[in-house]
Amino acid sequence: MHRLPELHRLIEKAFSEAAFNRDPMQLYQPISYTLELGGKRLRPALVLLSCELFGGEIGKAIFPAMGVEIFHNFTLLHDDIMDNAPIRRGHPTVHRKWDINTAILSGDTMFVIAYEYVAKTDPTLLPAVLDLFNDTARKVCEGQQYDMDYETREDVTIDEYMIMIRLKTAVLIACSLKLGALVAGTEPGLANRIYDMGIELGLAFQLRDDYLDAFGEAGKFGKAIGGDIATNKKTYLYLKAFETARGETAGRLRHVFSDPVPHAEQKINTVIRLYKELGIDTLTRKEIALHHDRAMEILHSFGFNEKLTVELIHLMEEMLGREK
Amino acid sequence: MHRLPELHRLIEKAFSEAAFNRDPMQLYQPISYTLELGGKRLRPALVLLSCELFGGEIGKAIFPAMGVEIFHNFTLLHDDIMDNAPIRRGHPTVHRKWDINTAILSGDTMFVIAYEYVAKTDPTLLPAVLDLFNDTARKVCEGQQYDMDYETREDVTIDEYMIMIRLKTAVLIACSLKLGALVAGTEPGLANRIYDMGIELGLAFQLRDDYLDAFGEAGKFGKAIGGDIATNKKTYLYLKAFETARGETAGRLRHVFSDPVPHAEQKINTVIRLYKELGIDTLTRKEIALHHDRAMEILHSFGFNEKLTVELIHLMEEMLGREK
Repeated sequence: MHRLPELHRLIEKAFSEAAFNRDPMQLYQPISYTLELGGKRLRPALVLLSCELFGGEIGKAIFPAMGVEIFHNFTLLHDDIMDNAPIRRGHPTVHRKWDINTAILSGDTMFVIAYEYVAKTDPTLLPAVLDLFNDTARKVCEGQQYDMDYETREDVTIDEYMIMIRLKTAVLIACSLKLGALVAGTEPGLANRIYDMGIELGLAFQLRDDYLDAFGEAGKFGKAIGGDIATNKKTYLYLKAFETARGETAGRLRHVFSDPVPHAEQKINTVIRLYKELGIDTLTRKEIALHHDRAMEILHSFGFNEKLTVELIHLMEEMLGREK
Repeated sequence: MHRLPELHRLIEKAFSEAAFNRDPMQLYQPISYTLELGGKRLRPALVLLSCELFGGEIGKAIFPAMGVEIFHNFTLLHDDIMDNAPIRRGHPTVHRKWDINTAILSGDTMFVIAYEYVAKTDPTLLPAVLDLFNDTARKVCEGQQYDMDYETREDVTIDEYMIMIRLKTAVLIACSLKLGALVAGTEPGLANRIYDMGIELGLAFQLRDDYLDAFGEAGKFGKAIGGDIATNKKTYLYLKAFETARGETAGRLRHVFSDPVPHAEQKINTVIRLYKELGIDTLTRKEIALHHDRAMEILHSFGFNEKLTVELIHLMEEMLGREK
């Protein structure tokens, strides 16, 4: 069983050995730029961990793991165009550093490369692997569409929100775990069970992201606090606050979000204060814990030896910030 | 052996039975809109014809054939954003009818759907089918990049141009023919030979498209005459004209293309006159015939019974407009 830092070294090594740069340069430079910006490489780590958990050799999982990471980066690249985001991982986004056309076409090419890497697997496993990847990719697109749809809708429910983040975020986490299991030759029933675990983990992971926007420590979180609040993004916190608030508090909430706000900092502070008044921090932590617990329950249901699951449990804690 | 009109009916039936519309509507409506606009369905017809040629059942080829057509339409959708094209097949392009974000994301989703359809094949054939499709998709992206690069380069050679159209246009024609062969269980050597034939057919097909922009009959061609000329597009005709022209004619050619032209019609007429003076029409027809002949040579090398090849030869003539 490999330890997490070793797995991360393997993943970085694989990425640094892969030559993404070639002609035409204008097409491939943005791809190597994107893939060299790094990121936490959570998804490939999940692929490798799951593969080992089910008794597979990680050498057989490394290319599919890279495929999932390349796909993830492709979605970020196209999402950044759609959100007109200027910065990703502390660097200019591709459509800003180059232009929109470059970002579209380099993204399309990354999508193909993702398929190439995912397909580097045992031929007998390919049908199941490809089914999983197609299903995941389609759902991620659907999730992004719902996310955009919700920007202009005022009646989004928490149930709808959970469906959206399941599609946009959780299915790729789930796909990573199932992919590792498939590559290890795991039978469909067990592979689907680890997928279900990944859904719970992915939901908790996105809720944690929502939570940190309001209640994270600026230095640790890696992005500025309150970005979701400043842009009126309908996060779990936002929806839960409107669901919870009554009377005068509801009025203040509506007011602070409806005001055309020149002073983002003031708005952010007011909203965070209201969230605390309403107990949204506690409610969100509870919801995160609920999905984390469900994920752990599924994991325990496999009856793995504790030594085998320690690294995965550790990574989950890192993802969800549970101190112990 | 099915006749061409029957094959086209089968393809249209398959498309009309496939339900592309589902939730989220904003994502899938542009997809069914795009796929319902029709087009000549040349590529799926080539898949089916090739499958039958090699003794396969077309029932096994229909889904992969649709996959190729869906992929083709995905590339048009994203290309239309990049070229800022307002009209496709007589209707507003997706990014005009909806918006750019919709066109990006619906395109991405079509790309996934293309993979889903291409993958609907015998599991034992899947590795070869997926290899072919990945390779093709990547090359088409590279071709589009070269095409965009050439817009701002003044030193493009005819050799470079031929490489570009091979990638952007010919490989998908070649992929269609090879895919049909693979689905029929054809051995790699023969499948690659029909691929090579597709490259020649594809090159001739693109050169014919270039030719018709200047020398087509407006009514028959389906687009307005001179679009390439008006936009200074570096087509085969353009590059061949600059390669051929000497002295005063070269000066007139440079002048008419470098002038900021308010009267497109006058520019178009002048260029067509210069092309004729330089014999570009004849030279282009010769180049088309050369690649058509090479394609026919490869086809004959298989030694198929003439009855088997008659429909394919007929489709090739339709594509290349050789009157016979």
